[in-house]
Amino acid sequence: LSRNSYKLSEIADLVGGELKGNGDTIIRGVGGIKEAREGDITYLADPRYASFLASTRASAVIVPPDARCTIPSVRLQNPHLGFLKVMEAFGLDIQPRPAPGVDERAVVDASARIGDNASIGPYCGVGRNVVIGQGSAVMHGSYIGDDTVIGDECLIYPNVTIRERTRIGSRVIIHPGAVIGADGFGFAREGKVHRKIPQVGCVVIEDDVEIGANTTVDRATFGETRICSGVKIDNLVQIAHNVVVGKNSVFAAQSGIAGSTVLGENVTLAGQAGLVGHLEIGDRVVVAAQAGVSNSIKPDTVVSGYPAREHSLARRIYACMKQLPDLFRRVKALEKKVEEGERK
Amino acid sequence: LSRNSYKLSEIADLVGGELKGNGDTIIRGVGGIKEAREGDITYLADPRYASFLASTRASAVIVPPDARCTIPSVRLQNPHLGFLKVMEAFGLDIQPRPAPGVDERAVVDASARIGDNASIGPYCGVGRNVVIGQGSAVMHGSYIGDDTVIGDECLIYPNVTIRERTRIGSRVIIHPGAVIGADGFGFAREGKVHRKIPQVGCVVIEDDVEIGANTTVDRATFGETRICSGVKIDNLVQIAHNVVVGKNSVFAAQSGIAGSTVLGENVTLAGQAGLVGHLEIGDRVVVAAQAGVSNSIKPDTVVSGYPAREHSLARRIYACMKQLPDLFRRVKALEKKVEEGERK
Amino acid sequence: LSRNSYKLSEIADLVGGELKGNGDTIIRGVGGIKEAREGDITYLADPRYASFLASTRASAVIVPPDARCTIPSVRLQNPHLGFLKVMEAFGLDIQPRPAPGVDERAVVDASARIGDNASIGPYCGVGRNVVIGQGSAVMHGSYIGDDTVIGDECLIYPNVTIRERTRIGSRVIIHPGAVIGADGFGFAREGKVHRKIPQVGCVVIEDDVEIGANTTVDRATFGETRICSGVKIDNLVQIAHNVVVGKNSVFAAQSGIAGSTVLGENVTLAGQAGLVGHLEIGDRVVVAAQAGVSNSIKPDTVVSGYPAREHSLARRIYACMKQLPDLFRRVKALEKKVEEGERK
Repeated sequence: LSRNSYKLSEIADLVGGELKGNGDTIIRGVGGIKEAREGDITYLADPRYASFLASTRASAVIVPPDARCTIPSVRLQNPHLGFLKVMEAFGLDIQPRPAPGVDERAVVDASARIGDNASIGPYCGVGRNVVIGQGSAVMHGSYIGDDTVIGDECLIYPNVTIRERTRIGSRVIIHPGAVIGADGFGFAREGKVHRKIPQVGCVVIEDDVEIGANTTVDRATFGETRICSGVKIDNLVQIAHNVVVGKNSVFAAQSGIAGSTVLGENVTLAGQAGLVGHLEIGDRVVVAAQAGVSNSIKPDTVVSGYPAREHSLARRIYACMKQLPDLFRRVKALEKKVEEGERK
Repeated sequence: LSRNSYKLSEIADLVGGELKGNGDTIIRGVGGIKEAREGDITYLADPRYASFLASTRASAVIVPPDARCTIPSVRLQNPHLGFLKVMEAFGLDIQPRPAPGVDERAVVDASARIGDNASIGPYCGVGRNVVIGQGSAVMHGSYIGDDTVIGDECLIYPNVTIRERTRIGSRVIIHPGAVIGADGFGFAREGKVHRKIPQVGCVVIEDDVEIGANTTVDRATFGETRICSGVKIDNLVQIAHNVVVGKNSVFAAQSGIAGSTVLGENVTLAGQAGLVGHLEIGDRVVVAAQAGVSNSIKPDTVVSGYPAREHSLARRIYACMKQLPDLFRRVKALEKKVEEGERK
Repeated sequence: LSRNSYKLSEIADLVGGELKGNGDTIIRGVGGIKEAREGDITYLADPRYASFLASTRASAVIVPPDARCTIPSVRLQNPHLGFLKVMEAFGLDIQPRPAPGVDERAVVDASARIGDNASIGPYCGVGRNVVIGQGSAVMHGSYIGDDTVIGDECLIYPNVTIRERTRIGSRVIIHPGAVIGADGFGFAREGKVHRKIPQVGCVVIEDDVEIGANTTVDRATFGETRICSGVKIDNLVQIAHNVVVGKNSVFAAQSGIAGSTVLGENVTLAGQAGLVGHLEIGDRVVVAAQAGVSNSIKPDTVVSGYPAREHSLARRIYACMKQLPDLFRRVKALEKKVEEGERK
C-alpha cells in the first residue's frame, strides 16, 4: 500500500541502503535530479549528472556508497533500483488501467474467450478462437487475429496489430503501433521475379516482455520467431522471421535483427545496431550503437563499429583513423628521407 | 489442386529436379530444415545450413545438384524455388482471406466503387471516388483516402493508412501499419523558419508489389513517387518523395532512400542501407547492409561501407582498418630506424 | 485570394525578384522542373538539376541571380521560397480539410472540449478532459489520451496515437501512424532482470511543429520531452524520453536521439543519423547522414562519419581510408628498403 510521505530513515530501510544525514527528513514525492522539488527524493545513477547534485532542489538523494553530496542521502550499490522501489512506495505506476469489459464498439468474435476483468476498447477487433487472459487490456483500435492467445495482465496499447496464431505470455506490454506477426520477408527468385514464400510459422512472446511503439516482429517461415521472457524492446526495432531472442535481452530504438539469428540471454543492442541473418550471439553480448554485426559473437563480448569488432580493438582502430591524415604525412616524409638516403 | 501426400518421384517431376534415393518415399508435408518432422520434405539453399542435413528429421530434401546427403533428395539449381512449388502443391498459402462484403462498421463514401468479392473490414474508412478492385481486401481499421484506386486481388492489412489520390495496381500486399502517400518532407527556409512546401504529387504502386509493416512511402512534391511492378519492400523502410524504384527491386528492413533518387530494376538494398537524394542507381546494383550511398552507382555494381564504395575495394579497406594499430607501430619503427640511419 | 493565371511580371513583383525575358508571359500553374507543362512556372534551387533547364517544358523559371537559362525567368536569392509564394498565389495547399463536427462513429468523452470548426473523424477516441482547439482535425482512427491538450488549426492524420497528458500547440501537423507519448525506455536492473521504471513525465510539442509518419516521441521519465516551435521531423524518427529539441530544427527520416540529449535551435540531422543520450548539441549543428554522435557538439559545427567528427576532418579521414591499401603497400616497400639499407 502506498503512502503520501515517508521519513528518510524509512526509505533507507525500504531500499536496504545506508542513511547519511537527517533521517527525520520528510519525503513527499520523487523527481528526476533536474525536475525534483523541495520535499522530493531524487537519485544519482549516472556520474555524468553529479554536477546537478549541487543545484537540485530535492530534499534527499539516493546515491552510490562513495558519492559526495551535502544533502541527506541514502547510499546503496544500485541507486536506480532503490529509486524504483521508492516510486512504488509512493504508488507511482501510471500505466493506463482501462475499465474492464468489452466496449460495445469493439468487434469480438463469438468464439473468443475474454478473461475476468479484461478490457477490450472501442474499435478493437478480436478474431476467432482468440483467448485474452484475466486483467489484460486491449486498447483503442487494436486488432487481434484469429487463434491468438494473450495471457494475464497484459497491456496492448492503441492501434497495435497482432496477426493470427500469435502466442503471448502474461504481463506483456505492447506499445502503440507495434505490429506482431506480419509475414517474414522471404522470396524465391525465378528469373528476375521474386515469388513470395508463404510464412506459415508464428510469433511467440513470453512473459514480462515489453515491445516498443511501431516496432515490428515478423512471423516465422516455419516454426517460431520467439521473444523469451523478460526481453525489453524499444521503438522502431525490426525483429525478422525465425529470430530467437534470449531471456532478459534489451534492444534500444531502431536496432534490427535479420532472419534466423539466435541471440542468447541478457544481450544488449544499443540504438541503430544491426545484425545480419543466421548468426549466433552469445549470452551477455553487448553491441554498441550503430554497430554492424556480420559474424557470430561469443558470450560476454562487447563489440562496436562497422564491421563490428571486439570493442577494445574497435576503439584502437577508430583512434588510429583520427590520426590517418597525419600517418600519410609521416609515411610521405619517410619515403622522401629513404629516397634521399638511397641517393647518397 | 492441392493433395495431402505425394511420392518423392512425383515431387521430382513437379519441380523439374533429379531424383536421388527412394522415389516411393511418401511426403506428407513441408518444413524448415530445423522444424521438419518425419514425412516432411525440407530444402537446403544456404550452404551454412549444410550441417543440419545430418540431424534433420525430414524424410527428403531438395538440394543443389552437388550437395552431399544421405536421405532421399531432389536435386536442382534453385532449391528455394523448387521448395516454393512444393509448398504450393500442398496448398500452403496462408494469407488471410477475409469474407467478401462491406462490414457495416466500415465508413464507405457513397461514391466509392467496391469490386466483386472485395472485402472492407470493420472500422475501415473509404473516401470519395475510391475504387477497390475485385477480390481485394481492406482489413480492420485501414484508411483509404479520396480518389485512391486499388486494383484486383490486393491485400491491405489492418491499420494501414493510404492517403488521397494514390494509385495501386493488382495483387499488391501492404502489411499492417504502413503509410502510403504521407507528405514528402519539403520546406523552404525563410530566415530561421522552415515553411512547408505543399506536396501536390501522389504515389503510384504497380502490380505485385509488397510493402512491409510500418514502412512509409511519401507522396511526390509534383508528379509521382513510383514503386514499379514486382518490388518487395520489408518493414520500417523509408521511401521519400519523388523516388522511383525500378521493377523487381528488393529492400530489406530499415533501409531508406532520400528524395528524388531513381533506382533501376532488380536493385537490392540490404538492411539499414541508406541512400541520399538525387542519385541514379543502376540496374542490379546491390547495396550491402548499413552502407551509406552518397553517389550515383553504375549497373551491376555491389557496394558496401561508409561512404559506400565498390565492394571489393571496401573489403580491402576494412581489412586494412583491422591492421591499422599494427601499421602505426610499423611506421613508428621505421621512423626510428631511418632517424638512426641518418644519425650514422 | 488565389487566381488562375498571372503575368510573369506580376510573379516577379510577388516574390520580390528580378524579371528577365518577357514579362507578359502568362503563367497558369506550377510544376517541378521535370513535371512542368507549358504555361507552368518551375524553379531551380539545386544546381545538380541545372541540366534539366534545357529540356523543361515550363514557360518560365525561378532561378538564382546568376543562373544561365534561355526561357523567361525570375531571379532571386532564394528560389525555393519564391516558388512557395507562387504555389500559395495559385491556392495550392492540399492538406486535407475534413468537414467540421464530431463524427457519430467517434468516441468522445463527455468531459472533452472540442473547439469551433474542429473535426473528429470516424473511429477516433478522445479521452477525459481532452481539449481540442478551433479548426483542428483529428482524422480516422486516431486516439487522443486523457488530459491531452491540442491547440488550434492542428491536423492529426489517421491512425495516430497520442497518449495521456500530452500538450500540443497550434498549427501542428502529425502524420499517419505517429506515436506521441509512449513510455520512455527505462529499466532498473535487478540481477538479470530489468524492472520497468514508471515514466511519469509527458511530451510537449510547441507551435508549428510537423511530425512524420510512424515517428515516435516518448514521454519523459520525469518532466517533459519537448519539441520546440517550428521543428520539422520526418518519418520513422525516434525521439527518446527527456530529449529537448530546440526551435526550427529539422530531422530527416530514420534519425534517432537517445534519452536526455538536449539540442539547440536550427539543428539539422540528416537521414539515419544517431545521437547517444545525455549530450548537448549546439545551435545550428549539422549532423550528416548516418553519422554516429557520441559526444556533445559546439554550435555551428558540421559533423559526419562514425564516430562523428568535425566534417572537414572526417572528410580527410575517409579520403585517407580509400588509399589505405596503397598505404600498406608503401609502408611494406619502405620496410624492405630500410632493411636493405641496414644490411649494407
